[in-house]
Amino acid sequence: MDVAAYMAERIPLVDHAIEARLGELSSGDGAIPAALSGAMRHLLFPGGKRLRPVMALAAAEAVGGPAEAALPLGVAVEMVHTYSLIHDDLPCMDDDDLRRGRPTVHKAYDEATAVLAGDALLTEAFAVLAEGAAPAEAALRIQTVALLSHSAGAQGLVGGQVDDLAFEAAGGDAEGTRAAFLASIHARKTAALFRASIEGGATLAGANIHQREALERFSRDVGIGFQIADDVLDADSGEAASILRLQGIDDAKHGAEALLDRALSEIEGWGEAAEPLRALASFAIRRER
Amino acid sequence: MDVAAYMAERIPLVDHAIEARLGELSSGDGAIPAALSGAMRHLLFPGGKRLRPVMALAAAEAVGGPAEAALPLGVAVEMVHTYSLIHDDLPCMDDDDLRRGRPTVHKAYDEATAVLAGDALLTEAFAVLAEGAAPAEAALRIQTVALLSHSAGAQGLVGGQVDDLAFEAAGGDAEGTRAAFLASIHARKTAALFRASIEGGATLAGANIHQREALERFSRDVGIGFQIADDVLDADSGEAASILRLQGIDDAKHGAEALLDRALSEIEGWGEAAEPLRALASFAIRRER
Repeated sequence: MDVAAYMAERIPLVDHAIEARLGELSSGDGAIPAALSGAMRHLLFPGGKRLRPVMALAAAEAVGGPAEAALPLGVAVEMVHTYSLIHDDLPCMDDDDLRRGRPTVHKAYDEATAVLAGDALLTEAFAVLAEGAAPAEAALRIQTVALLSHSAGAQGLVGGQVDDLAFEAAGGDAEGTRAAFLASIHARKTAALFRASIEGGATLAGANIHQREALERFSRDVGIGFQIADDVLDADSGEAASILRLQGIDDAKHGAEALLDRALSEIEGWGEAAEPLRALASFAIRRER
Repeated sequence: MDVAAYMAERIPLVDHAIEARLGELSSGDGAIPAALSGAMRHLLFPGGKRLRPVMALAAAEAVGGPAEAALPLGVAVEMVHTYSLIHDDLPCMDDDDLRRGRPTVHKAYDEATAVLAGDALLTEAFAVLAEGAAPAEAALRIQTVALLSHSAGAQGLVGGQVDDLAFEAAGGDAEGTRAAFLASIHARKTAALFRASIEGGATLAGANIHQREALERFSRDVGIGFQIADDVLDADSGEAASILRLQGIDDAKHGAEALLDRALSEIEGWGEAAEPLRALASFAIRRER
């Protein structure tokens, strides 16, 4: 399976759907302010790897659906991911001037616009999921709204960021900052959105409860493995990576491989249709950038 | 109709439902960080007038449903309203130290926690609307998610705040800041959430399309009238109120009365069941605090 070719084929679907949504917001009578539109686009185009939305599409395929069934969720998770980066970069949080080699949103615009662009992306994510749903799809859509809001909310992304800031403020080695606590931060900051992408994508394609439960476990392992890969890449490039303060780099790599093995075992026997999802899981954990 | 008695009866339903939701977030394995929980509660208890959620309940009754049908939306709109106050108060926006006579969230906690508490409330609003929906309710719930996200998003609350900041930065009298522009800001910052509350509450109670359209017009007039009443009260207390820079206070009061008349005409003939909604509209526009 050529994962790069798969991604190259699927990413334009996602990009086009995001563009279409932002275009609607900027046209007609209710056109949004230009600064808001620019700030919302700033980290979306050019974007990152689009791994979360592509995984949503692959998960839909893995349970026998068309990739397109998961497209509204793909757009939504990329918007939620982008909002979380914009808010995490703010001066009152990580205070970062650069993201992917370009000015962060509060540097390119200003702080108020960055807060509001994040707020708008988070809100529009739910609009994308909710609007235009056919009556027959309503039950699956509302389950996906529940999954995404749970993953992004106080028990997911937001709660993870609160604990992460407390951890950093304590210098990364205060009492109580054990590996288990860090793993819990990672589970909420990263794995939660992988879960929404993967389990949600399959849900929109009509997955049954057994498939959903298997993908819930699969996505947790892939999400944590993805975060470890990030930390290892940071360490290789000379940046101190938080989990590696507590664990050696070789141990971390072995741990990530074990997570990948366990994740793949969850969808063993799912056949050819699950091949893209397997390949994306390997890519997420073994990637070299 | 004794509007105070009606509110005194309905507010505890709303408060209890908000408490129940916050309680769930703070218990069990996934309990959220205490600082986040405290910051989310800070402006909710004690809260404001709870006018939006009570209107959601009254709108459900006005179309023949039980008030309880609108309770998830009542909780959601109060959370969205509270998130918008927390973010509007931030140093990078209105930079307010006090709200309802108490420290604002970024003063009581810190800026990062205030941003994140707002993010969490916005996200949990959608979780409340989506979770626990019976399959038969899914279609109405998803329509309500669409309505709330549209009202709160880039074309609603957030876009209105972007324009409001630009208006204030220009000193409130730059070229292009005509009364029509201000009215557009008000429509998005205030009326949009009234619409979500009122049309959404009726939607959850099974309103038909004619009722929904009438309530859309009703809620726009009530929302703008509510904002004018706010500005007049500010002017009476000596604060410069933006719309009154462009319009005399008597003109403003007459305008608000005309909006109330037009709003009430939209639901004329709806009988006794709509009496609480009528009384709340009058209260929103004629209140003296």
